[in-house]
Amino acid sequence: MPEHTATSRLRLSGLCFLLQILNILLFAVFVRYSPEGSPGQCPSQLNCSRRNPDSGFQQPRFQDVHIQVLLSFGLLVALLSRYGPGSVAINILIIAFAIQWAVLLQGMFYFVLNGKIYVGAQSIVSADFCTAAVLISTGAVLGRVNPVQMLLLALLEVTVCSLNEYILLSLMGVSDRGRALTVHTFGAYFGLVVSRLLYQPHKDKRKREEQQDMGHQRDVFAVVGTIYLWIFWPNFTSSTTVHGNAENWAVLNTYFSLVASTVATFILCPVLYEESTPRMVQIQDATLAGMAVMGMAGEMLVTPFGALIAGFLVGLISPLGFRFFTPVLHSRLKTQDMCGVHNIHGLPGILGALLGTLLTLLATADTYGDRLELVFPLVAQGSRTVADQALMQLSALPLTLLFAALGGCITGCVLKTKTLRCSPDEQSIENTVFCEVAEEECDPRASSKELGISTVV
Amino acid sequence: MPEHTATSRLRLSGLCFLLQILNILLFAVFVRYSPEGSPGQCPSQLNCSRRNPDSGFQQPRFQDVHIQVLLSFGLLVALLSRYGPGSVAINILIIAFAIQWAVLLQGMFYFVLNGKIYVGAQSIVSADFCTAAVLISTGAVLGRVNPVQMLLLALLEVTVCSLNEYILLSLMGVSDRGRALTVHTFGAYFGLVVSRLLYQPHKDKRKREEQQDMGHQRDVFAVVGTIYLWIFWPNFTSSTTVHGNAENWAVLNTYFSLVASTVATFILCPVLYEESTPRMVQIQDATLAGMAVMGMAGEMLVTPFGALIAGFLVGLISPLGFRFFTPVLHSRLKTQDMCGVHNIHGLPGILGALLGTLLTLLATADTYGDRLELVFPLVAQGSRTVADQALMQLSALPLTLLFAALGGCITGCVLKTKTLRCSPDEQSIENTVFCEVAEEECDPRASSKELGISTVV
Amino acid sequence: MPEHTATSRLRLSGLCFLLQILNILLFAVFVRYSPEGSPGQCPSQLNCSRRNPDSGFQQPRFQDVHIQVLLSFGLLVALLSRYGPGSVAINILIIAFAIQWAVLLQGMFYFVLNGKIYVGAQSIVSADFCTAAVLISTGAVLGRVNPVQMLLLALLEVTVCSLNEYILLSLMGVSDRGRALTVHTFGAYFGLVVSRLLYQPHKDKRKREEQQDMGHQRDVFAVVGTIYLWIFWPNFTSSTTVHGNAENWAVLNTYFSLVASTVATFILCPVLYEESTPRMVQIQDATLAGMAVMGMAGEMLVTPFGALIAGFLVGLISPLGFRFFTPVLHSRLKTQDMCGVHNIHGLPGILGALLGTLLTLLATADTYGDRLELVFPLVAQGSRTVADQALMQLSALPLTLLFAALGGCITGCVLKTKTLRCSPDEQSIENTVFCEVAEEECDPRASSKELGISTVV
Repeated sequence: MPEHTATSRLRLSGLCFLLQILNILLFAVFVRYSPEGSPGQCPSQLNCSRRNPDSGFQQPRFQDVHIQVLLSFGLLVALLSRYGPGSVAINILIIAFAIQWAVLLQGMFYFVLNGKIYVGAQSIVSADFCTAAVLISTGAVLGRVNPVQMLLLALLEVTVCSLNEYILLSLMGVSDRGRALTVHTFGAYFGLVVSRLLYQPHKDKRKREEQQDMGHQRDVFAVVGTIYLWIFWPNFTSSTTVHGNAENWAVLNTYFSLVASTVATFILCPVLYEESTPRMVQIQDATLAGMAVMGMAGEMLVTPFGALIAGFLVGLISPLGFRFFTPVLHSRLKTQDMCGVHNIHGLPGILGALLGTLLTLLATADTYGDRLELVFPLVAQGSRTVADQALMQLSALPLTLLFAALGGCITGCVLKTKTLRCSPDEQSIENTVFCEVAEEECDPRASSKELGISTVV
Repeated sequence: MPEHTATSRLRLSGLCFLLQILNILLFAVFVRYSPEGSPGQCPSQLNCSRRNPDSGFQQPRFQDVHIQVLLSFGLLVALLSRYGPGSVAINILIIAFAIQWAVLLQGMFYFVLNGKIYVGAQSIVSADFCTAAVLISTGAVLGRVNPVQMLLLALLEVTVCSLNEYILLSLMGVSDRGRALTVHTFGAYFGLVVSRLLYQPHKDKRKREEQQDMGHQRDVFAVVGTIYLWIFWPNFTSSTTVHGNAENWAVLNTYFSLVASTVATFILCPVLYEESTPRMVQIQDATLAGMAVMGMAGEMLVTPFGALIAGFLVGLISPLGFRFFTPVLHSRLKTQDMCGVHNIHGLPGILGALLGTLLTLLATADTYGDRLELVFPLVAQGSRTVADQALMQLSALPLTLLFAALGGCITGCVLKTKTLRCSPDEQSIENTVFCEVAEEECDPRASSKELGISTVV
Repeated sequence: MPEHTATSRLRLSGLCFLLQILNILLFAVFVRYSPEGSPGQCPSQLNCSRRNPDSGFQQPRFQDVHIQVLLSFGLLVALLSRYGPGSVAINILIIAFAIQWAVLLQGMFYFVLNGKIYVGAQSIVSADFCTAAVLISTGAVLGRVNPVQMLLLALLEVTVCSLNEYILLSLMGVSDRGRALTVHTFGAYFGLVVSRLLYQPHKDKRKREEQQDMGHQRDVFAVVGTIYLWIFWPNFTSSTTVHGNAENWAVLNTYFSLVASTVATFILCPVLYEESTPRMVQIQDATLAGMAVMGMAGEMLVTPFGALIAGFLVGLISPLGFRFFTPVLHSRLKTQDMCGVHNIHGLPGILGALLGTLLTLLATADTYGDRLELVFPLVAQGSRTVADQALMQLSALPLTLLFAALGGCITGCVLKTKTLRCSPDEQSIENTVFCEVAEEECDPRASSKELGISTVV
């Protein structure tokens, strides 16, 4: 038995080793720092100053780089309120691996020259967007996959996510700076499809009860997560939006949206539940939903009350989704949504995309002024009409859903292979090291052990 | 009984709904984004580039906008150490509502043109100052008002606070960039007057013992709050100070002040109490007090040791206030100060205002150089002597106290009306949903329930 | 007995009072704000615009000032995971005192003119570096010294640290912007030498077991600390690096290093320990080590895979050090390393310095371009060859170790004096106030009391 335990324990160790060595080798062969940092050696054939993959996509100021990790770590903080510190170690491994992998893959799409990938602040910001999508998907399957499966999920999802993003943003010229589609919607539905394929009826039921028991113990983490999101997220949303004049509105719209969505939660929760005030987790969900809906539309809204209305509606829809749609999703569609990513990221992302399409249709040179060139460069250049741009924005939605579904299917099938799953033997032996990590949220004894630990923190 | 419960539960829900719909309607009718974001459509009659209500009041850089929520959320984090996560949900609702309301009201004072309010980054920063004042007042009455009362308190206080700020900063030309008067002093005394009017002898006594029991359980939150304040507050204080050369000193003075005030707490606590080292809550209070005293004087001090002395003195006065003045306030003046806002915000704010007056008197073109135009624009332009300016600074103090007292009286009387208070019936039924929120800090059973929850976090 | 207790309690109070009054007096006599803030009165004999102690050392932008406290407070957050909130109060006192003292001392080295010390944002950033070194040393002796001893340790260490920094950076022209040597290595070995001198066999054993019991209770703090470090540290590392073009690489290298070091921990921990995934404390240690190794080399690395390899190696070495070297250090060298500062700061700092030396040797004008003048100003000016610069970088390492050893010896001897230590009587009386603070980590009853407190948080 100890040998078996050691084997499964070392499997993660070995996989990490292989992947990290692979990353180092690929970085050594392909990746160089973007020469724009050192103009003295900028090769003449490389347009160093303004090599922007999709035009209008500005180089972020370097002081914004530290914001790169905000997104994925913000999500991590938000996840804490659902599962506690137990799952964080694996999630940090996922982040550490996915950032490297995304820098490599996105570099191949965007920043290649003469067989070398030139990275810079922009690369890390883009890579972090992909990592955020992985974390959202992770939220759907958390507690039901082991670390090796999660690493493979990250490997595959980063690949599909980068491809989707490249097609949408670069080839189709879709305007989605806050990543309502490529991060929120993609991540949520990718995770849900994987969750559907990994469905195991009786195991899930036990888990569900467990989770509801622990629901209101996580209030402290939810408080920290909510405060974190309020402080950092609006700035983050605007980190890749056009700078100068337009940045302004994306930040302000995001604030107005989350303010309205928070109030909406206070309106609906007493009606749906027996409680007079919503729990902190619900307020945090409203905050996340109010921000996701502004992902695409944030820089397009030209009046503050639009943001208030959008935030208000999404703040009403998200609790309704938790109350009525999540049970249906579970019982009818056999899809377990562990952290409710469908209501927090999926639905608001779709609504944000539809709102963005509508706003694109309404865009005129009059209302936008100089901003038109920044938000819709192709329209401003005259190479595309507003209706064409709106069609592109609209068609990006089914395309993203398609990519998410296909990618989720492939990933789910890979994760279902026998060698990756804990074998039945392992499941019966409760103290098997490897399954313990995946099980620790659902197994009553493991949970109480964790509680024992955290009691004294 | 359930119907009655449902009624009181839905009262908050309904009030939120009404207020949010009202806000959306008012925003739809009046509020537009400031056209300075899109110069193409700037109406010629609007001086887009420099429409500053009080001259010298610079437009904040957009990267500073995310600092806007720091103030109110910093206070929220600080409050956590007194009351735990239980009270946070309501406070976030208060913030979400007060920001919208303050944007509207302050917009009417400052940013109106042709019947429209033009908002921008500046509006949200100003609105957040008002919200901070509301949170400080809330600290005085926390645990003794229900959510509906708190929403009404926010509604009324934002109104009076905006009026006070407009008169002081715009009409009188008082220099108070760090808001020692308009936020700290105003918020503290407004809350104390409301607390006086809501005084109920025997209820309060029980609460007091309870709170002292829980005092040292909040150390973890106090640690987080203190670290948060050290990191973000000095930058915040300077976010609305004049940029360029003068910003520097406000930040540095604030640091020196809080450093000295922290050491002072370590000197006085062993003398006043039986403990060898102060508790974290006391260190956090010293940090807050050391920052409040620099609110007005921060940009006026021209030598670092001045900031050290001011911080040192306020660090001595604040614990003395807790030890000797708060009991007097309670027993003689029948005013319950739940979070000690008088010692943390009220007294330091007054001292800061007096120090600011003194420094204004001493200001000369020699010592200030180019900064004079930034700190005292009217003096630099020659339209006012230094003595006149000092008189204005001084007269702003009684005016602020008057506004706080009047506003507090009105608010207290409104909150005392029968329909808003929990009726005697409700108080006898301990599980009434609506009162539970207000009671949860004082009722032993509710507290122990909360302890049960947080034990496992 | 009460008199005795009162005496020892008031000793800290009195020492704080004396030191603070001394600081205020010294500030009043010597310290003025740097006139560069107010160009109107800049004395002509002072080169206001570019008085940089070591050429190439740029003035930090003012918006970076708030980052100053990030370093020391980040370390504080990281320490929390080892000792809990109990030790924070004293550490904040240490920070508050050390910053003032370091501003004074470093001002004497760098910023003196006509008998006055001119301080500015730069002074506070430099002072905070010294404070961070003190906190690292504190980590080695935490729980075994009383507050009075810690204040004296801060007093002495700041002095030696400032001297060491002045010799290295200004006189020798060593390039060490991220302070791998002057903060990480110096702080770690200074603390270890003090720890060696304060060694008490049987007391330490008890403490050790205690600590191992409490080890896994601190996971929540480790999560917060890790997230904090990921978000803020890379930006911090670059806060004093050259701005403009070069800043970029220091941030990116730090990210790549910590990513690789995190993955390395996941590889090695299952091999060294029985656990399948590392504990959060170990991940936090890897994060710190991965950042320390980039202290000197961060701005010198010209390819991303170099940072990946360096981070990967240090991520392997740090857990090996904990597993094999720390026990040897304790049993053979009789040095108790309470927070493992040797593995987290000492070793990575030395490795970083060696890597920096190697990279200096490899530096050519070709690969660096314009950056050469910023990273190695003396080489760019032609007054020093690359080999000379590398020799300087290399010789800075033994010099720093020498200073740390000498300073640690002197400090340890001072702290061992009878009057400072708790007398045997006091140790036998467990409830003596003064020793309680130092003992609270090691005494079972005190610990359980603390647990009782935190249970309900």
